[in-house]
Amino acid sequence: MKTILLSGGSGKRLWPLSNDARSKQFLKLLRTPQGEKESMIQRVVRQISAAGISDGILVATGVSQKDSIENQLGGLTSVITEPSRRSTFPAIVLACSRLAAEGTGADETVAVMPCDTFADESYFESISRMDMAVRDGAAEMALMGVVPTYPSAKYGYILPGAECGVEGVCGVRRFVEKPEVDVARSMIEEGALWNGGVFVFRLGWFMDLAARLLPGVTLTPEALRERYATLPKISFDYAVVEKLPVGSLAVAPYEGEWKDLGTWNTLTDELRDDFHGNVIAENCEGTYIINELELPLVCLGAKDMVVAATPDGILVTDRRLSENLKRIAGGLDRRPMYEERRWGEYKVIDSVEFPDGFCALTKQLTLRPGCSISYQRHNCRAEIWTFIDGEGEIILDGERRPVRRGDVIHIPVGMMHALRARTPLTFIEVQQGANLVEEDIERFPLTW
Amino acid sequence: MKTILLSGGSGKRLWPLSNDARSKQFLKLLRTPQGEKESMIQRVVRQISAAGISDGILVATGVSQKDSIENQLGGLTSVITEPSRRSTFPAIVLACSRLAAEGTGADETVAVMPCDTFADESYFESISRMDMAVRDGAAEMALMGVVPTYPSAKYGYILPGAECGVEGVCGVRRFVEKPEVDVARSMIEEGALWNGGVFVFRLGWFMDLAARLLPGVTLTPEALRERYATLPKISFDYAVVEKLPVGSLAVAPYEGEWKDLGTWNTLTDELRDDFHGNVIAENCEGTYIINELELPLVCLGAKDMVVAATPDGILVTDRRLSENLKRIAGGLDRRPMYEERRWGEYKVIDSVEFPDGFCALTKQLTLRPGCSISYQRHNCRAEIWTFIDGEGEIILDGERRPVRRGDVIHIPVGMMHALRARTPLTFIEVQQGANLVEEDIERFPLTW
Repeated sequence: MKTILLSGGSGKRLWPLSNDARSKQFLKLLRTPQGEKESMIQRVVRQISAAGISDGILVATGVSQKDSIENQLGGLTSVITEPSRRSTFPAIVLACSRLAAEGTGADETVAVMPCDTFADESYFESISRMDMAVRDGAAEMALMGVVPTYPSAKYGYILPGAECGVEGVCGVRRFVEKPEVDVARSMIEEGALWNGGVFVFRLGWFMDLAARLLPGVTLTPEALRERYATLPKISFDYAVVEKLPVGSLAVAPYEGEWKDLGTWNTLTDELRDDFHGNVIAENCEGTYIINELELPLVCLGAKDMVVAATPDGILVTDRRLSENLKRIAGGLDRRPMYEERRWGEYKVIDSVEFPDGFCALTKQLTLRPGCSISYQRHNCRAEIWTFIDGEGEIILDGERRPVRRGDVIHIPVGMMHALRARTPLTFIEVQQGANLVEEDIERFPLTW
Repeated sequence: MKTILLSGGSGKRLWPLSNDARSKQFLKLLRTPQGEKESMIQRVVRQISAAGISDGILVATGVSQKDSIENQLGGLTSVITEPSRRSTFPAIVLACSRLAAEGTGADETVAVMPCDTFADESYFESISRMDMAVRDGAAEMALMGVVPTYPSAKYGYILPGAECGVEGVCGVRRFVEKPEVDVARSMIEEGALWNGGVFVFRLGWFMDLAARLLPGVTLTPEALRERYATLPKISFDYAVVEKLPVGSLAVAPYEGEWKDLGTWNTLTDELRDDFHGNVIAENCEGTYIINELELPLVCLGAKDMVVAATPDGILVTDRRLSENLKRIAGGLDRRPMYEERRWGEYKVIDSVEFPDGFCALTKQLTLRPGCSISYQRHNCRAEIWTFIDGEGEIILDGERRPVRRGDVIHIPVGMMHALRARTPLTFIEVQQGANLVEEDIERFPLTW
């Protein structure tokens, strides 16, 4: 079975930890069984691998997340980037076309699942049973049915039928996407399950279905990417699941832990009274504190709160009010102050705009060994790089020279420059000019 | 009448706003009647001047506060610095010796008062009556008697007698410094007042008394400073007030507002639901928020809390627990991350130590026009200065040149350097070396 992991959304709900360049699934807030920090997506990939249910994981995501995925999962997964964000149906068609193009057979099964569900091992056992049901021909597509805890209007509801021949997998009597609360309540009384957003099907079967749903569209990765912006912006549930005859569906119930850790309130259910970073806490209860800044954070007598400090901002909130955060953080409209990139990471440590409009922005950057920053020039800003650790090589207007701790490089407006790290290379960059935006960059090809 | 303002203590109790270089009396947390920000010491000096009770204010303080006083009060007061901190009696003797040395007559009255009392106008009217009582010969020394609100063991207690001939000023029947709570309670029942720490006396009378209390010590500023470390570390209350015959004392009762704004709890009584800096607050009650950092601070649903963010750290505390802060902040033992200096100000924006012990420290500094940094060299660190605003002049190993926005100056270990600002001059400094301490500095004379 192949696995497609859907890695979506920018997630303002976990501000200031998440930002446009750093979605919630990449935050290293969880712990491995060995006690090391891991992100939601790292956890899911580790769990899939431990369960031994997949021989290949493909992550479908937006361009802005590609660097984070490669940094966190490099080697464990491959990545396909969506040219723009257009909901889950086009993303799954694109990812499946890539599997087909790379030689996955039409008979091979594919599991599609979200990358940010917090679940236990039996979740993956359910997926394995779903796989078996599809391979055995008990259904065209198998769904995961999560035992509901309340009549939410946010989920799809699956009414299971009799066992379909595979142990722990049932037929489907009815599927209703996001019903009203009253309908949800009566469906739960009848024994309905939440649609857990996990789907297993054969690749060939789905590609045929996609061809019927997207008439006239060539289903190769290249062709799909080219006209991606014209594909319907529709979820897989509405486009596919709801439209299929229930006779072609099966459902594997799952009763274990199942959470979307997408808001501070749900996330901190997992993480109460946990303190990360330079934190001194006394007399706190039910409180989660994370400090990614270097300066000390002292917290006294907080009850049921979340306190988070990062280069993007500081949050102090009653856990129950954290739902308001999406609206507030959405209005802040600030450049990301911390980013993980393919080549390493940076944080903005100072930013000042003078009355005449001139700006200065100071960053601390670290390149990973062997990684490089592309050959580039800026038209509106000068940069001064002070190397404070490591060794590497720089190219300035075609001239190559080594750089190391102690060196200072002045890059005037218009000068072409590239940098490569031999060892972890840390430097302070002072940008100055009238308009300091990431977009002021012209890139040129270069072979080191 | 001359006024001596006592400006003491480093004040860890208001961490992270206060630090070793920035005491509570310099924090601009209050508002003038016109709505502008002012510090406690600025408020007292403004009130003294508005009351018209003084023809000269001398601030007695430690060396570390001299720059802050000159920045905040420049021109309004003069300053005498104590070579070391040795409680209030030696400080008052030193300040009075300076008044005498500069020509204040023996008959002139002197008012001594703390610089961080939060009081209303009638406080200064009481001081004026104290002055009158001493001038009229009703007493050798007049005290301020604050009407007590509870039997505290922290204060001195003054039992007033009959009016002494000056309206609103009474004789003193008894003075007890810091009694037990039970004694305090019974004294309050008898009508005792708290000693408000304000004293008025004639300069000559006090210098004679000081000569008797410090036999063999020459009472000139120079001689006192020279042997300052050997003077008794004793408060004015114990050394003088308690020892005087009560017949030589008078007391002016004061019933107005009277607070020591020295802890977050007392300070925020004045400042509830007040938000300073880049703050978004919703559903907060009884909460004071101050953000001196550039990054946004979002606070949702905080009740009776103090939230403060500065380059020194982040505090989130229940108001009632802020008393614990002195112990905690005292244990942090971190260099000040923000300082106001004679020449301007700086903040530390990044600090990193590498595994091999090498350190890098990045600051943003601003020099005020006409101000300069002394001619100096460092033996353990190199500095890179990137000028991001303003114009000035630099001297490097004797060579003078102009600097301005856009210039980058590399100062290797051992190079002599000085800097002067023509306009407000802002630059980013990257220090690097094995040992980055403010003490690694050798200063040389220079005339610009």
